[in-house]
Amino acid sequence: MDKPKIVEIKEDITSRNNLFAKEIKAEMKRKKIFYLNVMASPGSGKTTLITNLVNRLKNDYKIGVIEADIDSDVDAVKLLSTGVKVIQMHTAGACHITCQMSYEALCALGVEDLDLVILENVGNLVCPAEFDTGATENLVLLSVPEGDDKPLKYPLMFEVADVVAITKTDVKDIFDFSFEKAKANVRKRNENAEVFVLSAKKDENVDALEQYLRKRIDSIKNA
Amino acid sequence: MDKPKIVEIKEDITSRNNLFAKEIKAEMKRKKIFYLNVMASPGSGKTTLITNLVNRLKNDYKIGVIEADIDSDVDAVKLLSTGVKVIQMHTAGACHITCQMSYEALCALGVEDLDLVILENVGNLVCPAEFDTGATENLVLLSVPEGDDKPLKYPLMFEVADVVAITKTDVKDIFDFSFEKAKANVRKRNENAEVFVLSAKKDENVDALEQYLRKRIDSIKNA
Repeated sequence: MDKPKIVEIKEDITSRNNLFAKEIKAEMKRKKIFYLNVMASPGSGKTTLITNLVNRLKNDYKIGVIEADIDSDVDAVKLLSTGVKVIQMHTAGACHITCQMSYEALCALGVEDLDLVILENVGNLVCPAEFDTGATENLVLLSVPEGDDKPLKYPLMFEVADVVAITKTDVKDIFDFSFEKAKANVRKRNENAEVFVLSAKKDENVDALEQYLRKRIDSIKNA
Repeated sequence: MDKPKIVEIKEDITSRNNLFAKEIKAEMKRKKIFYLNVMASPGSGKTTLITNLVNRLKNDYKIGVIEADIDSDVDAVKLLSTGVKVIQMHTAGACHITCQMSYEALCALGVEDLDLVILENVGNLVCPAEFDTGATENLVLLSVPEGDDKPLKYPLMFEVADVVAITKTDVKDIFDFSFEKAKANVRKRNENAEVFVLSAKKDENVDALEQYLRKRIDSIKNA
């Protein structure tokens, strides 16, 4: 008896998404835009870090921000204070941003003449890691209150990270968090990711990440 | 021309899951077991709260704990210190627990003679809410460092909650968190959920939640 045909639906979705992601990456490169996808748990401080970085970079680069949430516009409202172009995307219940959603958001934002586009993904340490958004790089946040063991428990998120920001260091004295363990746990998942340790809220040690981003934006802009 | 047939795959998955969930609920009721599904963001303190509650309840009830994670066994190891029966479930990348996974875990744990089974779901404020695990009640945690706006951004999770625990109140002085706003935001999503405000780590105000659970466990046990 013949074996039944196996349809690998998940594989198919991911491979189509990855193909589309390659097209977006190529298009953004052609347009000389650095596209940064920011991922983390709910409440890890994504919006606060993005606001801090936008304020540091906005005088030298043209910036657009895409805020993704299942519902509400609280983050987009916060970002509007920076004066850069911001749009709010509602995912209608979806737990992640697919490449199609990323593309539609880029079109809605309007990226012509921009140097930097930042996507704040849905707050979720699992699903967004499975879908390449077409971003140039992935920035993953790990906040001190979450604990230093998270890279062990959410492996894929830290595997797909190009940059990891360990955030909320201003509250380190009141949480059981070891920076050495956190870094070692990130390294178990990812040998190459750049790791920064900072407090965006207190504006402490954000310089190194800012300088890293300036280099990366410039390298795309002047390619 | 005839319209093409629409296959609502997601609907189908959810409705099958819901049917199975009803069977598990009936079976647990028949066995007089209170089955509690604990959901929250990564690092919100699920394991700490469960450990605290188990230590308060273990002398009066027979308890089993199912720890679900994508990878690692750090939570199960912590729970073992309580002396109750604990199993670690690995979801192999999955971002939520389906009813099938819940059922297999209950079988692996062995629930005969238990009064209380606690499932610590995958740390994720989105996907676990979509899948009924067959639990008697859902306990959702919202930790102070995450921010009081989370019920606005993750509506379904707070809609499916029977009980909400606002946790990590011991750090309230250093975060911008309004308990009034948090409670009002929970109420926008859910008119009936019981809301408790506590610090499991510092063992502050856990009594009210403990008493609530004792009543619920007893009502099932003595039904």
